[in-house]
Amino acid sequence: MNDKERKPWVTASDVAARAGVSRSAVSRAFSPTASIAPQTRERVMVAARALGYQVNLIARDMITQRSSMIGVVTAGFENPFRARLLSDLMAALGQRALTPLVTNAEDPRQVRQSLEQLLSYRIAGLVMTSASPPLSVAQQYLEHRIPVVMINREANLPGADIVVSDNAAGAAHAAQRLVRAGARRLAFVGPLGASYSAQSRATAFEHAIGRGDAFDSTLAHVLDTPSDTHASGVEAARQLFANGKRPDGVFCSSDLLALGVIDVARSEFGLRVPDDVRVIGFDDIPAAEYDAYRLTTLRQDTRGLAHAAIDLLADRMQTFDGPSRTRIVTVTQVVRASCA
Amino acid sequence: MNDKERKPWVTASDVAARAGVSRSAVSRAFSPTASIAPQTRERVMVAARALGYQVNLIARDMITQRSSMIGVVTAGFENPFRARLLSDLMAALGQRALTPLVTNAEDPRQVRQSLEQLLSYRIAGLVMTSASPPLSVAQQYLEHRIPVVMINREANLPGADIVVSDNAAGAAHAAQRLVRAGARRLAFVGPLGASYSAQSRATAFEHAIGRGDAFDSTLAHVLDTPSDTHASGVEAARQLFANGKRPDGVFCSSDLLALGVIDVARSEFGLRVPDDVRVIGFDDIPAAEYDAYRLTTLRQDTRGLAHAAIDLLADRMQTFDGPSRTRIVTVTQVVRASCA
Repeated sequence: MNDKERKPWVTASDVAARAGVSRSAVSRAFSPTASIAPQTRERVMVAARALGYQVNLIARDMITQRSSMIGVVTAGFENPFRARLLSDLMAALGQRALTPLVTNAEDPRQVRQSLEQLLSYRIAGLVMTSASPPLSVAQQYLEHRIPVVMINREANLPGADIVVSDNAAGAAHAAQRLVRAGARRLAFVGPLGASYSAQSRATAFEHAIGRGDAFDSTLAHVLDTPSDTHASGVEAARQLFANGKRPDGVFCSSDLLALGVIDVARSEFGLRVPDDVRVIGFDDIPAAEYDAYRLTTLRQDTRGLAHAAIDLLADRMQTFDGPSRTRIVTVTQVVRASCA
Repeated sequence: MNDKERKPWVTASDVAARAGVSRSAVSRAFSPTASIAPQTRERVMVAARALGYQVNLIARDMITQRSSMIGVVTAGFENPFRARLLSDLMAALGQRALTPLVTNAEDPRQVRQSLEQLLSYRIAGLVMTSASPPLSVAQQYLEHRIPVVMINREANLPGADIVVSDNAAGAAHAAQRLVRAGARRLAFVGPLGASYSAQSRATAFEHAIGRGDAFDSTLAHVLDTPSDTHASGVEAARQLFANGKRPDGVFCSSDLLALGVIDVARSEFGLRVPDDVRVIGFDDIPAAEYDAYRLTTLRQDTRGLAHAAIDLLADRMQTFDGPSRTRIVTVTQVVRASCA
């Protein structure tokens, strides 16, 4: 690169000269934990602003051997629930002056390369939001004493912290509401084989129906889907409703699945929602509110999940040792027309 | 941090010792541009894999003064079009062994802090996908001779490259299709004040209607919305359809707007789509395909946008100087029931 026309970076020495302080005072002013007199810090900050100084984080991380980057592993951006969670995670990290290094684990061919890249950046912590990367990856970080927190996935990894939505309460609410709305033949739809969240929602749903307050309702179908997408909901509904003994109440482990079920119920089987079939989802994505669906669902508190996760991570960045902790975040019933 | 139990990082010296080569040979093996004998590189790679060596990119960037990080500025993740574009940008960067450093410019209070943080990481390039950060930010990067590429926004900044979808062709297709489907009183809905894309789609739409091949159709309404969300579509539709001379053909500058328009047309005004009102969107988000909407739209080629942007950026990372370039990426008509 031809450097002769490039505007040079303002250095810490430039700032020191302008503020009339030492070079090391500038370093201390920009280090959150260093000790420095408030007046000195203020003088440094005024000079830094005047000159347009940007602290060189690469250099600082290199010198202090402490990165301010946190790896965030997500499984794609197209699921609106994951998109909202990612947005809230980035905001929560920003509030602590931590920088998210986002990795998309959706493409299995890319994920290993990406996760190794995170190790290469000597990240200070890892947030895993997806079920796709193997736990061995988390193990690798923990061996380097890099904190790991997992959102909505199970892990029996000493030292890894876990934040989950209250799947049991959510599924129990769904069962009660379907039964009270008159559903007698119930169905569960979700990626049981691929997702911890789907498994725990299914278990709690079945348990709630079996508890006796479900009167004469039965869980007639449990459908394992390949994913939690709209397309999987479409496929599941074709199986469910082609059956002679079709369900009149369906609990889906995601809103996208529920939208697919509603679309097929109406357009391919001429069923009315909720008169012929009641449908409940999970997540509360924006489309759940659209007039075309008016989906009853369990809202996941993505802000709550994000803040709990970053709190646990920041805590363990201070003190790595200690047993794994689990935080359960409340879900909220959102009642709309699909099961009122 | 208590270091005594921490698994130490494997160092380049460890790899050199195992491979029986010099420390500098290990550096050269991991530098894409360095000269090294293929057999030596292979020996280094075998040793590195055996030891679980991760090149320290922080250190390499620091030593070579070249970062492999690219700032990516997006405006939120909830718009499914932007989510898909971000996903494709991350994949395109990954293919070039570049690391995306994603910044969410949706929250105006966070954006300045985030963009300064990018400068602090000495990023090697910047991709701006949003209309929200001021151009002065891009100017700041260009002054440091850091390449900037903009997607779907206008900029008269010497040295910044631009990639845009073919808004003119898309809007002309929309006008033709609405008119051929029998629409006579046309409307345009979009964030004219806030978005370059909306502006250029409106201009081309108006131009196509005025060209004469629109028979006796007229552009009866041009509605400026605060954003391109479903909620803005709902508000716009309430204005459009409350009017005595309601439109029978609506072109929206995003699919989310179009879904909001369809919802209100049906549920609040009892209008049938497409019989009473034909609707066309822009983007081709997943929900456009759902049975509840079956939205005719113009598909933006996010892969094409992403690859064009990263190609331009990589090119300018080699040779910074040269005039700004613009790449126009083709859009595809996707015809569904909302205007067949």
